[in-house]
Amino acid sequence: MSNKPVLHTILSPKLLDLYTITNSIVVVIDVFRATSTIATALYNGATKIIPVDAVDKCIEIGKKTGGITAGERDGKIIPGLDYGNSPAEYPRSFIEGKTLVLTTTNGTKLLHMALQNGASEIITGSFPNLSAVCDHLVAQKKNVILGCSAWKDRFNLEDCLFAGAVIEKIKAHFTIHCDSSLMAENMYALHKHELKSFIRNTTHWHRLSQYGLEKDLEYCVSADLANILPVFINGDLVVQ
Amino acid sequence: MSNKPVLHTILSPKLLDLYTITNSIVVVIDVFRATSTIATALYNGATKIIPVDAVDKCIEIGKKTGGITAGERDGKIIPGLDYGNSPAEYPRSFIEGKTLVLTTTNGTKLLHMALQNGASEIITGSFPNLSAVCDHLVAQKKNVILGCSAWKDRFNLEDCLFAGAVIEKIKAHFTIHCDSSLMAENMYALHKHELKSFIRNTTHWHRLSQYGLEKDLEYCVSADLANILPVFINGDLVVQ
Repeated sequence: MSNKPVLHTILSPKLLDLYTITNSIVVVIDVFRATSTIATALYNGATKIIPVDAVDKCIEIGKKTGGITAGERDGKIIPGLDYGNSPAEYPRSFIEGKTLVLTTTNGTKLLHMALQNGASEIITGSFPNLSAVCDHLVAQKKNVILGCSAWKDRFNLEDCLFAGAVIEKIKAHFTIHCDSSLMAENMYALHKHELKSFIRNTTHWHRLSQYGLEKDLEYCVSADLANILPVFINGDLVVQ
Repeated sequence: MSNKPVLHTILSPKLLDLYTITNSIVVVIDVFRATSTIATALYNGATKIIPVDAVDKCIEIGKKTGGITAGERDGKIIPGLDYGNSPAEYPRSFIEGKTLVLTTTNGTKLLHMALQNGASEIITGSFPNLSAVCDHLVAQKKNVILGCSAWKDRFNLEDCLFAGAVIEKIKAHFTIHCDSSLMAENMYALHKHELKSFIRNTTHWHRLSQYGLEKDLEYCVSADLANILPVFINGDLVVQ
């Protein structure tokens, strides 16, 4: 039992530096909606996704790579960019064979922090690629950090619920002495049969639903609709 | 409804500075065991409690005030101090009329952060004084931050469960759009009928129970056994 790798959950990027992650796989989780969109675009054949944290950088890299630039503020496409953050904007008929340069705040921040702190591997997780993430973590037999991107460093429920979904599936393979993980597992068990209605209570739902994104948010808590594994390599997210 | 004051929960001291607290009452929560011991000693007649963050400061202030010095590391009294961190060490027959100089790490840190960030009032909360805290918050009609002291900044379940207990009692009087609060309320509702057994799953239980402190920890999740309100004024905790 003591030979099992260790799993921890962090509830905000601000808590990442409390853990040593140099021997760990970090799963970056940003359920509404960055990592759900990432899984979807890659599943639908995008060549790669370049996550960036600033609009000007997005435009610059878009020009250099010929990629599609994407990003939203307050539910609208940011002026100067081509598309938004909705997974529904990236069907195969549109995104196949293309590069997507994606501006996000919370998810990108954690990706870059995990890189700087020396994670041995960085992948992204969301309900649309839940099983791919779980299968990979079980196969690798390495320590794991489930990293919730949160909202401007504030805890959010949707990322926590995804962490709980992963834990429920893979816990037999890991040593878990972590109150965040136990809480996440409890919360997922409590709400897994009513995720689409429960998320209507979250802060993020109230923030986004006014922009008519209910369908988006429901997609983002549906399992395995875009079941590939995005891996962060040399600044790009690509399918493993 | 919009006239109701706002309540937020923070899950770690590291997340405190994400919130403006200048118009808020901050409830410092350190269930295992600082704020439980604080409530108990004051309930049993201690004149005041001086929380300090370092052993040498504890000894120095103890000499100056003639107070009892207290603090533990790894379940043992710290050399140079008089007593430990257990609420059971402070019955009325011993502590009445005395000053207690208490060394703690997590709880004291958050107390001082709340002071530096300009909280309008700072009180301490624990299951032994649950109702006193709730009655006060409802009466004051001010914004509230339920501040979990956590463990070396890592989320812990016992502080979260106390936050949930408070929320369950007072939520009708507050505007709550906060995923941390919703989660805490859910977790408390899930476990409130089996708190004494559930806490055996927490990280802190595993850390402390090896020192034979099971009775202590069970006391610390029992409601209203020391039902007074500790208020932090000029560096001292006193009964309001």
